[in-house]
Amino acid sequence: MRKNVTLKQIAKELNVSVSTVSKALRDNEEIGLETREKIQAFAKMYNYKPNSIALSLRNKSSQTIAIIIPQIVNHFFTKVIQGIESVANERNYNVIIAVSNDSFSKEVINMQTLVNGSIDGFILSVAKETLKLKDYHHFTETISQGVPIVLFDRQVDEINCDKVIIDDEKGAQKATEKLIETGCKKIVFVTTEDFVSVGNLRKKGYRNALEKNNLSVDETLIIKVKDVLKSDEIESFIFNELEKLTQYHPDIDGLIGVNEFYTITAANFFKKKEIKIPDEVSIIAFSDGVLPKYSYPSLTAVSQHGDKIGETAARLLIDKLEGITQEDYHQTIVIETDLIERDSTK
Amino acid sequence: MRKNVTLKQIAKELNVSVSTVSKALRDNEEIGLETREKIQAFAKMYNYKPNSIALSLRNKSSQTIAIIIPQIVNHFFTKVIQGIESVANERNYNVIIAVSNDSFSKEVINMQTLVNGSIDGFILSVAKETLKLKDYHHFTETISQGVPIVLFDRQVDEINCDKVIIDDEKGAQKATEKLIETGCKKIVFVTTEDFVSVGNLRKKGYRNALEKNNLSVDETLIIKVKDVLKSDEIESFIFNELEKLTQYHPDIDGLIGVNEFYTITAANFFKKKEIKIPDEVSIIAFSDGVLPKYSYPSLTAVSQHGDKIGETAARLLIDKLEGITQEDYHQTIVIETDLIERDSTK
Repeated sequence: MRKNVTLKQIAKELNVSVSTVSKALRDNEEIGLETREKIQAFAKMYNYKPNSIALSLRNKSSQTIAIIIPQIVNHFFTKVIQGIESVANERNYNVIIAVSNDSFSKEVINMQTLVNGSIDGFILSVAKETLKLKDYHHFTETISQGVPIVLFDRQVDEINCDKVIIDDEKGAQKATEKLIETGCKKIVFVTTEDFVSVGNLRKKGYRNALEKNNLSVDETLIIKVKDVLKSDEIESFIFNELEKLTQYHPDIDGLIGVNEFYTITAANFFKKKEIKIPDEVSIIAFSDGVLPKYSYPSLTAVSQHGDKIGETAARLLIDKLEGITQEDYHQTIVIETDLIERDSTK
Repeated sequence: MRKNVTLKQIAKELNVSVSTVSKALRDNEEIGLETREKIQAFAKMYNYKPNSIALSLRNKSSQTIAIIIPQIVNHFFTKVIQGIESVANERNYNVIIAVSNDSFSKEVINMQTLVNGSIDGFILSVAKETLKLKDYHHFTETISQGVPIVLFDRQVDEINCDKVIIDDEKGAQKATEKLIETGCKKIVFVTTEDFVSVGNLRKKGYRNALEKNNLSVDETLIIKVKDVLKSDEIESFIFNELEKLTQYHPDIDGLIGVNEFYTITAANFFKKKEIKIPDEVSIIAFSDGVLPKYSYPSLTAVSQHGDKIGETAARLLIDKLEGITQEDYHQTIVIETDLIERDSTK
């Protein structure tokens, strides 16, 4: 089989980013003339083509929508996909999925591969690295080519498109208020680093609830799980942080985690220490996957309704593809969260 | 946007199966002449084309492999995808994923959409409905078009291609032997209906272990969860079956479930009845997702190594695509399972 050079190979060969190659090949003036010419010459020599035959298919509806998610081993994202699938099936669309693995260059490459494969539109949650780099040219280029995008969960304000978001702030506020109502006064918050927008919004909700109830916000009670940690390192990180925290603050009586994994790990810390849930410490998980439901005791959780998010995103996209809504009319739909009360709160 | 009629629409309109439409359009003589002509005329009238422009792309490597899985909200399948992604990334291939939702016609449509979108090859686990119908023409047609397939987990003997399977029989036998060694004499087996090949193989392993240890096989101890049940109906089904079973057999002292969901549900039944795990009943889960690890007590589990299955499948496929192995040389690689001992066994 004859192989064409890929964007990634050009980037590697010339020691530049995939984004630079992509921009240079589109003759974008953000890239210096010399670099642009070097990349264009290299691409020509190695037979890189943005596939004009495939491009010609673009104007025809393929009845296929593409989803790009940051991670695949993630219950929330798979529930969103399930929701998208159910609406897409009903309305006679095929669905294909790609994973960015939270990498900027994989997100760019996935998007280009799929657009070339004649996709009608995208439903997408932004990769962490893209949020960090704040480089959104692949989104704007795709939209300007007439391929609509619906962003969900991890969105960016800078992009003008349909969006489906969770009321992260309100969800975390409701969870914190539930703990305060049931008597908690010292509530730990286990979250991501600040650049992850949803972690940040949930932290804001936590602060709001404390302030509204005249409880002081103690920054040392906020555990930020380092983004570089591998999944098997997260447990010992959270255990160590909680170990230190419970020594300084033996009166900790509540905990909220921004995802089910952080939360169940924290719950296991308390079980190991024989600190009783919910008698001594009440716990709420943000996101209601299989873990909160089946853990013992079962955990009260903020349900983000992943399936509903997916259904809504699919409806927005297909309505646009079928001309039911206008191309330049953009909606942001906020999906309300629910607090599913179980046995980890009083 | 101009829309072309899809296979599914033709099938619906003429009240025949997608498979019949697909065969008729390929002028397959399995379909009666009259039906064939009717379908061909209809397809022509409504402008159905197997997309000759896209077909012309077929001979060019797209550096993209497609995965089709039966379910997306499933930890095992997402681990397999993760394994495929890691090898594909290393070897510079893109990965796209589609979900059959265990439906035969969705599997067929996904396959055709992806082949038309210029995919180099498939990694696939067969839909339940396809196994039931025993209709594999979409696999044989794809292979005969020069697009290789690697089957994993749920495979079919009738298809000649590379396969990656789990030693389901041996895995279940090892699990049953572990329970027998630790003193269990009356072991319940919670499984699928017989047409699901992996459930069947695991049951065989369970029987082997009992027979090898001169324990009689009591068919009433085998609970077959009905395939038609929705996920929220499975719990009450398993609870009811166990309720009846423990009344007839108060001396039940072991249980194995063929997936983590059945197993944790059974474990919850015993917790509800205040039957102590593992003192009164020992439990082993087949498949090691997040549930066995984080449940309380944590469950001993048969790890199927989903990531390793994915890595192996990707290697087999890419080796074939790059001519490292010959087109007509087919391997079946068996991935060994491991018993991860935790707190639900003695």
